[in-house]
Amino acid sequence: MKPLPSLQALLFELQKLPGVGPRTARRLAQHILRAGAREASALAKTLCDLQKNIKKCPQCFQLTEEEDFCAICLDKSRDPEVLCVVEQPFDVFRIESSGAFKGFYHVLHGAISPLRHILPKDLTLKELQRRASAGPVKELILAIDSDLEGDTTALYIQKTISAPSLKISRLASGIPFGSDLEYVDDKTLWRAMENRSGV
Amino acid sequence: MKPLPSLQALLFELQKLPGVGPRTARRLAQHILRAGAREASALAKTLCDLQKNIKKCPQCFQLTEEEDFCAICLDKSRDPEVLCVVEQPFDVFRIESSGAFKGFYHVLHGAISPLRHILPKDLTLKELQRRASAGPVKELILAIDSDLEGDTTALYIQKTISAPSLKISRLASGIPFGSDLEYVDDKTLWRAMENRSGV
Repeated sequence: MKPLPSLQALLFELQKLPGVGPRTARRLAQHILRAGAREASALAKTLCDLQKNIKKCPQCFQLTEEEDFCAICLDKSRDPEVLCVVEQPFDVFRIESSGAFKGFYHVLHGAISPLRHILPKDLTLKELQRRASAGPVKELILAIDSDLEGDTTALYIQKTISAPSLKISRLASGIPFGSDLEYVDDKTLWRAMENRSGV
Repeated sequence: MKPLPSLQALLFELQKLPGVGPRTARRLAQHILRAGAREASALAKTLCDLQKNIKKCPQCFQLTEEEDFCAICLDKSRDPEVLCVVEQPFDVFRIESSGAFKGFYHVLHGAISPLRHILPKDLTLKELQRRASAGPVKELILAIDSDLEGDTTALYIQKTISAPSLKISRLASGIPFGSDLEYVDDKTLWRAMENRSGV
């Protein structure tokens, strides 16, 4: 059976998405074919709009759309003494929805990973140094993923970012709230042992 | 945090896809944001192209792109006496790649499902009757899904499609090749018992 070029092209593009293999791509393509032109072009339009409208805040590098600075950097009621350093823009949404933090953010847009060719110069580390040394910042809270790349990035920040009386801390790593000891993995248990605290 | 309209729109459209919930939509959106404008517009273009370029073969209703009739209907070396009736265009690809069938196809574009408001008139059943009664067709092989909607559709075809000396058969339902009896579900086991054959 002769393959259909437009269908092949769509399957190829869909398979670039994370978690989408040949089977999922076929299922998505089948849905798009059945759903008709209006739904497909609505999806296509949002894809184009996203790239056209979304930009990065020049201060914290979080995503912003209508205004130049992001809504958090424009919020004067926040604590200017604490900067929460995160890897990805979506991490900011996550922390904001928890309500656990009331300072400002700094988005690195990645973590150091020599294997994936992500070096310190690819992240917003220079700007972080500038913000840490200028202004009222007294603490950096590293809300960086708890994996090999996150650990590397945290260590790098600790070694290279410095300012008089700047405190650098990291989110606690340990057993998640409400979880059963039996189902906690070894790595997490090790970390929880190392970071144990007084009762 | 103020939501970003373009991002919300993309998340909304992504969640219309099968198997995509809020979490997967966020992961996809995050990937698209990171991948940059070129990948996003390539995906958008393939979505638009698909709807513009793909049409249905006027004979069997399989998808076709460059030519009016599909490649299978144009293939004169196939057996014109057998029609394989399938629900979806992708089922044709599946059967073709197995090499188990050398006749022509007829794509219903769905299965009868009163709950989902899919009635016999929404399928290509009239055209199937026309093809079954005209020409050299001697057998319809129903390669229809083995579920409630598939069963309904198969029964409907058996009751309504008729032509002199037309045989209607259905793909055998039973235990998949190579599978362990212990892990076969009850429904499949029931069907395999009912349809048991001589050794």
